[in-house]
Amino acid sequence: MTTFDEATAVTRRAEGLYDVLPDARFAIVAPGGTTPPAINGGALLATVMRAVLSESPLPHPVATSAHFLRVAQLAPAEVQVTWLKHGRTAATARGALVQDGKVILDTTMTVGTVPGPEATGADEAGPDEPGPGVPGSAAPGRPPAASDSAAGLLTWTGPPPGFPAIEDCVDLGKWRGTTAADGTDGYAAQVEVLMDPSTVGWRRDEPSGLPEMRGYFRLRDGQEPDPYVLALAVDGLPPVVFGLGATGWAPTVELTWHMRAVPCPGPLAVAARARHVSGGWFDEEAEVWDAAGCLVAQSRQLARVGRGRIRGPKVDAVVDGVVAVVTSAVAADGRVAADGTGLNGA
Amino acid sequence: MTTFDEATAVTRRAEGLYDVLPDARFAIVAPGGTTPPAINGGALLATVMRAVLSESPLPHPVATSAHFLRVAQLAPAEVQVTWLKHGRTAATARGALVQDGKVILDTTMTVGTVPGPEATGADEAGPDEPGPGVPGSAAPGRPPAASDSAAGLLTWTGPPPGFPAIEDCVDLGKWRGTTAADGTDGYAAQVEVLMDPSTVGWRRDEPSGLPEMRGYFRLRDGQEPDPYVLALAVDGLPPVVFGLGATGWAPTVELTWHMRAVPCPGPLAVAARARHVSGGWFDEEAEVWDAAGCLVAQSRQLARVGRGRIRGPKVDAVVDGVVAVVTSAVAADGRVAADGTGLNGA
Repeated sequence: MTTFDEATAVTRRAEGLYDVLPDARFAIVAPGGTTPPAINGGALLATVMRAVLSESPLPHPVATSAHFLRVAQLAPAEVQVTWLKHGRTAATARGALVQDGKVILDTTMTVGTVPGPEATGADEAGPDEPGPGVPGSAAPGRPPAASDSAAGLLTWTGPPPGFPAIEDCVDLGKWRGTTAADGTDGYAAQVEVLMDPSTVGWRRDEPSGLPEMRGYFRLRDGQEPDPYVLALAVDGLPPVVFGLGATGWAPTVELTWHMRAVPCPGPLAVAARARHVSGGWFDEEAEVWDAAGCLVAQSRQLARVGRGRIRGPKVDAVVDGVVAVVTSAVAADGRVAADGTGLNGA
Repeated sequence: MTTFDEATAVTRRAEGLYDVLPDARFAIVAPGGTTPPAINGGALLATVMRAVLSESPLPHPVATSAHFLRVAQLAPAEVQVTWLKHGRTAATARGALVQDGKVILDTTMTVGTVPGPEATGADEAGPDEPGPGVPGSAAPGRPPAASDSAAGLLTWTGPPPGFPAIEDCVDLGKWRGTTAADGTDGYAAQVEVLMDPSTVGWRRDEPSGLPEMRGYFRLRDGQEPDPYVLALAVDGLPPVVFGLGATGWAPTVELTWHMRAVPCPGPLAVAARARHVSGGWFDEEAEVWDAAGCLVAQSRQLARVGRGRIRGPKVDAVVDGVVAVVTSAVAADGRVAADGTGLNGA
């Protein structure tokens, strides 16, 4: 059993009721240091998913909505599962992580069956060469699963975001917040995040001016992607608002993710961006592509901007209390993104 | 009271319990004619939202997740509301539409406060000239609401999708499925949808080859946008897979939408697209911009491809049972979209 499997394990106590223990190995401390240690939201989500899927008549979490209500403590908790529908194509359950009688994380999951994987190993299309992922690229001769009509045979994929080669990426390393006060290694010690250099200027107080993050994501212990790892990966990169100079913990309020295909082994490529930031709220939408170039997961979350200082030279003006961030910025690698497009590719 | 307000009204029976009646004026019959009449999902969602917001300590539905489980009947139903958290910045409730003891629509809503509106009327930036909606366009001197720290002052918006002028758009009219067997006018008689001509080729069996829809949306009775109208608008255009030749009712399985700003009066501009279609599933993500050029709502849904025939000349090949749809297609207006980008602008 891998570290991640252990840390997100559930123990059945009764039908629809599971004992769980938020695990310090996935604890996270905000870089700003202004918040108490918390457990990575993706790890908590994976825990709830394990409970629901252990009872599920269908294999894949096709649509998972999660509202993050409270900070989990490093203490025993339970997952309560209630099924709302059992259908042939889809079934739906509510899954709640409860601690001290309070809901920490409330989820609704619709399960079903998705196609894939397109490739059985990273050998066919290595991490350095993500497959084309282009429209119409579904392998002929491999009908998607769950095809119960002509509609099930329709396949289409939009163009992938541009990912640099993995060897050109910047290893985030074990960033601040990795190690708890008692010396225990937390979340950042479990995952390897290799970032597109154009999206890490914030590390040297030079945010790109664009709310975008791109990089590769994998577990350090070698665990290959599965639905639980996808739940971790969709929120696995630094908050996109770091690209606008925001700092500090950016707590997720709501996150919904869709599993679109079974991932093949190999590192996951993750691209995230925001479309709108105001009133302290920002959206972050992420796509996860597997090593064979297949779009395997999508997510969007609504989160709060961290309360730390606004950093970096890209803050253009402070007028009447409104910070306007210019986006006709020159990215760290010299590429000009006049309108915010072109770097994400989507 | 407008038609939409009436059709989505709730009557309080007890704390957390509301009587509702799915309204035939928002019934929808699939163009393929293969499914029973159903109620527009957005109207059902608005009904549940009314019940939750009637008890809410905070004004705006910032994050609403909805799982559509069963088809609602034109018969009495109830909405059950359960609050999970009351916080200063956000509060969260579950709201379920229940009929005959079964959950029809299950939602989780996090409420809060969003900024806006940026303009108080369509006069300032008419429907024909959506405002710039460009990064940094927040009006100086109008600090966003809910600003409790420097973070609350950070504003940024991505570039808007390209919308044609409203007078160049195609009125979908009262399309098939508008009128029920008994002669009652349904959903399509209540809304006006004016489409970007490049996204309606499917109406003449010439789908564009791209899963994109763009258009303007408003209620025929003149009701101005509010949070409930936004819930209708995010799923207000035809299914994006019509652009790939799919036909028939494309039932929403899960839809999550975020309210990002209070809309000003005037028509809403809606842009929707898919990123991936396979296994009978497709995603549809929509942005809603108000008449002042502000991004007021975002959504993503997971839906099932309709079971009707695949139409149109853009079906390139059927190989081993896999329909591959070419996307290096010439759009209806002659623009070439070689890679699926360029038409959506995002």
